[in-house]
Amino acid sequence: MSAGLVNIAYSTAFVDELVRSGLRHVCISPGSRSTPLALAFAENRAVRTWMHVDERSAGYFALGLAKASRQPVALLCTSGTAAANFYPAVVEARYSRVPLIVLTADRPPELRENGAPQAIDQLGLYGSHAKWFAEMALPDESLELLRYVRATACRAYSTAAADPPGAVHLNFPFREPLLPAPGEYLANDSGDAGRPDREPWTRTGQGVRLPDSGLVERLARELNATPRGLIVCGPCDIPGVTEPLVRLARLLGYPVLADGLSPLRYGAHGLSLVLDKYDAFLRDAEWAAEHEPELVMRIGAAPTSKPLTQYLQRYPSARQIVVDEADGWRDPSLLAAEIVYADPALLCDALAAALGERDARAQDWAAAWLEANVQAGEAIEEKLGRTDGMFEGKLFAELATLLPSGSTLYIGNSMPVRDLDTFFGSTSNRVRVLCNRGANGIDGVVSSALGASAEAEGHTVLVIGDLSFYHDMNGLLAAKLYDLNLTVLLVNNDGGGIFSFLPQVAHSKHFEQLWGTPTGLDFRLAVEMYCGRHVRAETYAELRDGLRLGIEGGGLTVVEVRTDREENVRLHREMWSVVSRALRGKSVLGAGA
Amino acid sequence: MSAGLVNIAYSTAFVDELVRSGLRHVCISPGSRSTPLALAFAENRAVRTWMHVDERSAGYFALGLAKASRQPVALLCTSGTAAANFYPAVVEARYSRVPLIVLTADRPPELRENGAPQAIDQLGLYGSHAKWFAEMALPDESLELLRYVRATACRAYSTAAADPPGAVHLNFPFREPLLPAPGEYLANDSGDAGRPDREPWTRTGQGVRLPDSGLVERLARELNATPRGLIVCGPCDIPGVTEPLVRLARLLGYPVLADGLSPLRYGAHGLSLVLDKYDAFLRDAEWAAEHEPELVMRIGAAPTSKPLTQYLQRYPSARQIVVDEADGWRDPSLLAAEIVYADPALLCDALAAALGERDARAQDWAAAWLEANVQAGEAIEEKLGRTDGMFEGKLFAELATLLPSGSTLYIGNSMPVRDLDTFFGSTSNRVRVLCNRGANGIDGVVSSALGASAEAEGHTVLVIGDLSFYHDMNGLLAAKLYDLNLTVLLVNNDGGGIFSFLPQVAHSKHFEQLWGTPTGLDFRLAVEMYCGRHVRAETYAELRDGLRLGIEGGGLTVVEVRTDREENVRLHREMWSVVSRALRGKSVLGAGA
Repeated sequence: MSAGLVNIAYSTAFVDELVRSGLRHVCISPGSRSTPLALAFAENRAVRTWMHVDERSAGYFALGLAKASRQPVALLCTSGTAAANFYPAVVEARYSRVPLIVLTADRPPELRENGAPQAIDQLGLYGSHAKWFAEMALPDESLELLRYVRATACRAYSTAAADPPGAVHLNFPFREPLLPAPGEYLANDSGDAGRPDREPWTRTGQGVRLPDSGLVERLARELNATPRGLIVCGPCDIPGVTEPLVRLARLLGYPVLADGLSPLRYGAHGLSLVLDKYDAFLRDAEWAAEHEPELVMRIGAAPTSKPLTQYLQRYPSARQIVVDEADGWRDPSLLAAEIVYADPALLCDALAAALGERDARAQDWAAAWLEANVQAGEAIEEKLGRTDGMFEGKLFAELATLLPSGSTLYIGNSMPVRDLDTFFGSTSNRVRVLCNRGANGIDGVVSSALGASAEAEGHTVLVIGDLSFYHDMNGLLAAKLYDLNLTVLLVNNDGGGIFSFLPQVAHSKHFEQLWGTPTGLDFRLAVEMYCGRHVRAETYAELRDGLRLGIEGGGLTVVEVRTDREENVRLHREMWSVVSRALRGKSVLGAGA
Repeated sequence: MSAGLVNIAYSTAFVDELVRSGLRHVCISPGSRSTPLALAFAENRAVRTWMHVDERSAGYFALGLAKASRQPVALLCTSGTAAANFYPAVVEARYSRVPLIVLTADRPPELRENGAPQAIDQLGLYGSHAKWFAEMALPDESLELLRYVRATACRAYSTAAADPPGAVHLNFPFREPLLPAPGEYLANDSGDAGRPDREPWTRTGQGVRLPDSGLVERLARELNATPRGLIVCGPCDIPGVTEPLVRLARLLGYPVLADGLSPLRYGAHGLSLVLDKYDAFLRDAEWAAEHEPELVMRIGAAPTSKPLTQYLQRYPSARQIVVDEADGWRDPSLLAAEIVYADPALLCDALAAALGERDARAQDWAAAWLEANVQAGEAIEEKLGRTDGMFEGKLFAELATLLPSGSTLYIGNSMPVRDLDTFFGSTSNRVRVLCNRGANGIDGVVSSALGASAEAEGHTVLVIGDLSFYHDMNGLLAAKLYDLNLTVLLVNNDGGGIFSFLPQVAHSKHFEQLWGTPTGLDFRLAVEMYCGRHVRAETYAELRDGLRLGIEGGGLTVVEVRTDREENVRLHREMWSVVSRALRGKSVLGAGA
């Protein structure tokens, strides 16, 4: 077999095995050294190939695909800095627990660290951020090596997906000639066909973490004996957790504080104990001081809401129980008394079954939380109704009325995720809310949303600020090349809006230079370049029309709303002020007057 | 002292010391955790602060600044994926030997690896690609710690600049409150003022590598006894090397094969032995077979020209002597018989002094090379004269006639650097040619050129392909925000032109999808968004007008030339064919007819 054919046979076996394991998508950035793998992917009809010139966007597009599909997605690039461009997405994948299979092509050993062109040290390129790194053997035609490459593909797929999911990195050295002559090329003619019946070479079963019965009994006794408890559901994407969790909360009479990035807020699982306005009413120091919890059970990542975090920090003696489906240590406040490593749905079911008769039940406790949630919600709704100018918080309230059930909402970091938390209320509509909340970066968000849109059930809407939009404008190319359907709500306050809420704002001498960072860009031109529809919405009516146009019309639509950073702070503070007044039973109408 | 003031005092001492060591530029990406350092930089009038929202572009902008100034440039970002976006520039800095000081802000230990927002593992983030990594101590107000931070700043600056230059990475943990209240804030009120007279805390002297005399004598004897020698000057940026090298070449009668990315081609140092057309005539197998070298002395990185590399590989018994000013191993062909670690200019001077009477001198040897160079040059010139359509090679010939002395030419990777090598001839004009030739990436090139333009003596012109331009379009924001002067010659063949020269082109089934990768973008819109001037040149007259407009008018000008990838291959092959004919004394006019 010629050297080129060996490269192809080796790569074909590898790709074949990824596909048998379940792979359906690969994002490829063009290059030469990666040719054998690129060809093997292109020849395999079971996997969809997405080409991306910018590897950083490719990485985040793959991340979005993997988030939406909850399955590993492969990435391929050539040697050199191309591979370094995947780094941000690899880091995000680690912290947001998203499975990626990163494949980098490399020069063989004799062309490393001796000045060969486009050769960099790729061994362990992603450091601690790759779940697993392997330097692949040089291709060889022996059946033993083909078994090795098949088994390694299965292992890469399985390792990426296993709890906690993350990125695995395989580095592939290839010698020239990289590929056979066209006439010589035959897909999979190596005599190696893998297992019969399209079985993967090695099937893996991950199992689910069952909580042990002793622990369940002890926790159930404790919960039974504790009237003032809370369930906090932070950002997470655990299918099937909503019903068991809500059932347990009902049995206990515990309010559920549901993060805007948790599935608890959205769906038909019963929202009677689900709170969505705590970010607003927990800012009220008086209310927070009057409602001391005894026990807090946390699921998912640390909550988005800073007022909630501060509320929990105020009561260090409240027993915090953190539930984690994987091997994390999700406790930045350092208050956890117990971490239970178990599948959250199974744990909730087991606890519900073990509860028996409830010893202590604080009717007033849950009622007070529910009342505050209603009061805050009504005050905000009323105040929003009287807000005619374009206010960033109100955009989410508008969006909530427009999103069809089955939609996916991708949320940018910085201000959008915070405004979502406060202003996008719970709904029985099925809405899937995604956000790059592993490392909270403003980078790669456009590509992530586009990746998600390719696997989402319904239409995908992205809400994003102007700096984050600018950061990944390159990502829009995928929308043009692949006719993707995405509606972008671009909240353009010309700079870093979040900094106006932070102490930095007091340093007026350097504030605009270091933190305000206005770019003054006319994004209409970029949208036009990528063949999208640009709508400038100056009123809420125009906003609704623009969003409807995007959701119903398909393709790429960018609805741009311009807001003012200082005015935005003022309006947020007014919101919190009317909420405080409402909690004390004062007239909402009087606030801010 | 309040915790905020301690953060500021610590950061101010650090920045002060970088400035005392020589720092003049910092590129900052906005963020919160990096606030103490950002404020310290903004308050220091001796350092210029460049704000970049996209950290990847920031990294490459700093690289361009550092290349042009030959001095370390600092980079600062906040915690999280922001820091991962510096990675491509850090890698490029390593392989192209450019000094960078990368500063990343981080959470303190108690907020790491426990789910705190925007916290990722930043220890050793750049792996083997950072020359030095240090986790800084948490700020403290003791004078001992202020001495530590001053000494560390000196060390970072010195280490980044020491041969071989590269990126150093310091990770700064900061606790909240990050900064004092505005009233409390006083620059450098810590009682710590550093050394008197603006001396750095620790001054370092790097010395220069002198070749030892025994080695010089031995080499001189060898050179004296070897008639058929070559000096190959690959990509490098060693000031002061040109004259000693040309003097030595004259004494030896050795032709100098000067890479398009070496300073040997450009300037008034005497070009009589400097060859600039070997990339064309060494493609001629017959000529290459008839001219066997006995000795090759190499300076700088491995040459850009593949025909030259193949020519050298053809003669493994020719003694290759590699001269390296730093600790590299620049020998991808694995043919070096000797590596001399010494300053190239000092070595050339020492050899010239030690040569004495020349034993063997092959007059015919140099004459044959010079004749081939003239023949190839004339054939190309003549053929270009008859080429009316827009040919990528001819763009460089046109550029050569237009660039004023003192200009900087930044060259994109992939096709531009190769066309430069063949078509941009030697000139006594001072032209500084820069290229990201460490890892040869197509990423970050726009930002690198803009960074270089900010420190370049004359006007800067960038020649770049469309995929590379697209990859770093975000970089253009700096041109808008800082009114930089850059003329971009955008060679738009709508895709990856280089792949049409590679064996992949034969795989027509997947070629356009995997390698051609056309984007179909109308770049005029992007240029308009960044407030630049866009000129579409369809003729050489329009090209010249556009370039003149950019060079004389200042600001950002993008002169776009559209070419065809297939036609481009055809025209290149015609060039090589007329060169071959010319070498055999055949009529140039008959070629390609």
